[in-house]
Amino acid sequence: MRMVDLIHKKRSGEALNEQEIQFIVGGYTRGDIPDYQMSALLMAIYFNGMTGEEISSLTLAMAGSGEMIDLSAISGVKVDKHSTGGVGDKISLIVGPIVASLGIPVAKMSGRGLGHTGGTVDKLESIPGFQIELTKEAFFEAVNANKIAIVGQSGNLAPADKKMYALRDVTATVDSIPLIASSIMSKKIASGADAIVLDVKIGSGAFMKTVDDARVLARTMVNIGQSLNRNTIAMITDMEQPLGREIGNANEIRESIEVLRGTGDKELTEVAVSVASYMSILGKVFETFEEAQAAIRDIVANGKALETFKRFVASQGGDPNVVDHPELLPTAQYHFDVIAAKDGFVNQIDAEQIGIAAMLLGAGRAKKEDQIDYAVGLTLNKKIGDIVKAGESICTMHANRQDVAEVEAMIHEAYRIESTKPADVQLIYDVIV
Amino acid sequence: MRMVDLIHKKRSGEALNEQEIQFIVGGYTRGDIPDYQMSALLMAIYFNGMTGEEISSLTLAMAGSGEMIDLSAISGVKVDKHSTGGVGDKISLIVGPIVASLGIPVAKMSGRGLGHTGGTVDKLESIPGFQIELTKEAFFEAVNANKIAIVGQSGNLAPADKKMYALRDVTATVDSIPLIASSIMSKKIASGADAIVLDVKIGSGAFMKTVDDARVLARTMVNIGQSLNRNTIAMITDMEQPLGREIGNANEIRESIEVLRGTGDKELTEVAVSVASYMSILGKVFETFEEAQAAIRDIVANGKALETFKRFVASQGGDPNVVDHPELLPTAQYHFDVIAAKDGFVNQIDAEQIGIAAMLLGAGRAKKEDQIDYAVGLTLNKKIGDIVKAGESICTMHANRQDVAEVEAMIHEAYRIESTKPADVQLIYDVIV
Repeated sequence: MRMVDLIHKKRSGEALNEQEIQFIVGGYTRGDIPDYQMSALLMAIYFNGMTGEEISSLTLAMAGSGEMIDLSAISGVKVDKHSTGGVGDKISLIVGPIVASLGIPVAKMSGRGLGHTGGTVDKLESIPGFQIELTKEAFFEAVNANKIAIVGQSGNLAPADKKMYALRDVTATVDSIPLIASSIMSKKIASGADAIVLDVKIGSGAFMKTVDDARVLARTMVNIGQSLNRNTIAMITDMEQPLGREIGNANEIRESIEVLRGTGDKELTEVAVSVASYMSILGKVFETFEEAQAAIRDIVANGKALETFKRFVASQGGDPNVVDHPELLPTAQYHFDVIAAKDGFVNQIDAEQIGIAAMLLGAGRAKKEDQIDYAVGLTLNKKIGDIVKAGESICTMHANRQDVAEVEAMIHEAYRIESTKPADVQLIYDVIV
Repeated sequence: MRMVDLIHKKRSGEALNEQEIQFIVGGYTRGDIPDYQMSALLMAIYFNGMTGEEISSLTLAMAGSGEMIDLSAISGVKVDKHSTGGVGDKISLIVGPIVASLGIPVAKMSGRGLGHTGGTVDKLESIPGFQIELTKEAFFEAVNANKIAIVGQSGNLAPADKKMYALRDVTATVDSIPLIASSIMSKKIASGADAIVLDVKIGSGAFMKTVDDARVLARTMVNIGQSLNRNTIAMITDMEQPLGREIGNANEIRESIEVLRGTGDKELTEVAVSVASYMSILGKVFETFEEAQAAIRDIVANGKALETFKRFVASQGGDPNVVDHPELLPTAQYHFDVIAAKDGFVNQIDAEQIGIAAMLLGAGRAKKEDQIDYAVGLTLNKKIGDIVKAGESICTMHANRQDVAEVEAMIHEAYRIESTKPADVQLIYDVIV
C-alpha cells in the first residue's frame, strides 16, 4: 500500500476502506507517513467528505493509536459527556455531581487545552488542594466509592488525533465535519465511555455558527457512536452569549456551586438539568426525559447533588469548605465595573469577544506554556434581554492588575444595547438521538 | 501574511493575488514554508482551480525563483518549442535545424529527465563527441554563428517548480491543469523565450488522454504566454501510438537525420513540418501557415536543413560524419524481431507500453541515477493501419543483452492486430492561438 495512491483514491471521490485507514493512521502516528502527505489527504477529505463507514474507521483507528482506557473495574454504565466548547461552559462541573448522586459512575478524564479559560481540570485546580493527577487504581477506587472522579487526560490518549489536529491547525483543514466528529469521538472511545452525551454549541462563541451545521456534526457523531456500540445523544445548545454569568476558573467553580445549591443562573441551570437528564437516560436510571428532569430537580433541591460535590472535592484532596465559603477560592485583587453608556435592552453579547477579554485578564491560555490565573475573570451582570440603565454596571472585571482599559473596551464592543427588546433566547435547539 | 490564511483563502474558493503568490513561492523555495502547508495548498488548488491571473502570477513567481536567462545577446526573435512528452518524440531534433536554416535563432536549453528514452540532450550525447555543456558565452556565440545550439538546462532554472513538482508527485496533485500549465510555462519564461510553440500530446502515450482535456491545458498555456507578452501557439497532436518508427537515443538521431534528408517517416515529417511552420510564423519569417509549410518543405528538399544540422553537431564537438554514415552512431550488439502471430491490420499500438519496453532495454531512466544505453531501442516496422502477415516482423529490438523475453512480451501486448482496417490516424487535432 502506498500513501500517494490512497491520497489519489480519496481525491478522486472514492471511499477508503478500514484497512487503508488503519494503514494511514498507524503510519502517520509512527512517523512513517510524512506530514506533507497527511495534509494533502486531509485537504482531499475537506473537499470530498467521508462516508459513515470511513468516519467510523477513522475514529477507531485514532482511538486505537494510543492507550485505550479500560473502565471495566468500575461497575455500572460509564456515561461520558463532551461539549464542543464555548465561553462560560461549566456544565461538566455541575452534571458530574448530579448524575453521580443518581448512582451513575462519572469517570471523567479531561484535558487542559487552550482557550478563554482553562479546561475542567484547570477550573478544579482553583480549589485549594485539589489533585487532578491520580494513579489509575486511585481513580477507579474514587469512582467506585463516590461515583465521581475527574482527572487529567493521559498524554497518550489518541496520539494520532493529537498529531493530526496540530497539522490541521496550520493547513486550514480544521473545519471539516468528518474530521471534527472523528477527533472528538476518538478520544471518548479511547477513554472508555460506554455511552456519551454530546453538547454541540452554536453561536458567536462556538465553532459552529448555524443550527444546520451543528445538526450535521451532531448527526455524524451520533452515527459514529451507534456504529461503535456506544449509545450517543447529541444536544444542540446556545452559545450566542456566554453560558451563565461567570467566566474564569474560580469564578466558574463558584457559579457551579450556586447551581448545585439551586440558586444559580436560571438558563445555566436549565441546560445543566437537561444534559444530566440525557446522561441519566443513557445510564439506564430513567426512561423518559420528564421523569429524569423531575428527579434531577429534586436531587438539587434536597442538597444531595451539593453533598456529592463536597465529597468529590474532598476525595481528591480539595478543601470542601469552599462550598459553604466561596471566599476560600482564589480572589482577584481588583474589581472594576464596565458601565453602560445608554439605556436600553441587551440585544447581543459576543461570546467570542467576552472570552478573549477573560483570556487577556489571564483566565486562559493563548499558548500551551501560558500560566493561568485562577482568580481573574468576568461576571456578566447583564445578559441578553436584560434592561440596562445608563450608568449601571453590565459586567465586573476580576483582575490582578490595574490597567484593564483594553479589556474594558472589548467588553463594551461585545455588548450591543438597543432600545428594542430582543426575542427570547432559545437554549436548546435540537436533540439528536 | 500567514501561509495558513492563504491556504484557507484558496480552500474557500477565493483567488490569491500576485503578492500572496509571490509570498508563497518565495517562502517555499527558501524553505520558510514547510512541505505540509504547500501540499495542502496544492490540493486546494487541485479542487478549486485558479483564475487566469493567478496562473500567470504563479508562472512568473516560479520563473523568478531562480536564474532568469537573458538571451538579449542573441539577435532575433528567440522561439522556443516544448512538448508535453511522449514516446518517440524527436521533433525538437528536427525542427531546430529547420528553423535555424530560416534564420530563426534556436537557443535551446533542455533537461534530461526521466522517461522511456533520454531527453533531447541525452539523444544528442549519443553522437560521438557531442558536448551539451557550454559556457554561457560559448552558447550565445554558437547561436549567433549557426543560429542553433542545444545545451543542458541550468540546475537553477525555476527551482520552485522543481521543488513543487517533487511534492506534487508524492501527494497526488500532479494532474491539475493550472499546476501543469504554470510548471511548463515557468521554465520557458525562465529560459528566456520570446515566443513559444507548445506541442500538447494526447493518447495512450501521453499524460492527457482526451482532446477536451488537452484543449483546456493548451488554452491555459497560450493564455499564460499572452498575458506575459510571449506569443504562444499550442498544437494538439497525436500520441495514441509512438511518433515515427524509432525509439531510443541513437535510433532517434538516425530517424531525425532521415527526416531532415527528406526520406523519413511521413507522419513524423508532417508533424515536424507543422511545428516548424508555427515556429517560423512566431519568428516573423512567414505570415501564413501555407507559405511557411511550402518554404520548409523546400529547405528540407534542397539539403539546407541537413547542412545546418551538420554544422550544429560539429560546432558542439560532435562528429558530423554521423549524418552520412549513421553506422558511426552507437549500435546495439543484438537485433531481435518481434513476429506477428496472425494476419491482419495493426489497430492499436499502446505507446506507453512501447515506451516502457524501450526503457527496460536501457534506453531511458526509471530513476535519476540510472545510466542510459544510447545504442538500444526499438524500431517499429508496422504502425497503425499497416497490413501484417503472420510471420512478419512488427518490431525490431536493438539490445545489448540476449534475454529480452519480457520486452518481447510487452511489445506483443502493445500491438493489437485485427482483421478490420482501422480509421486513418489523425495527426494534428487542433491548433490554439
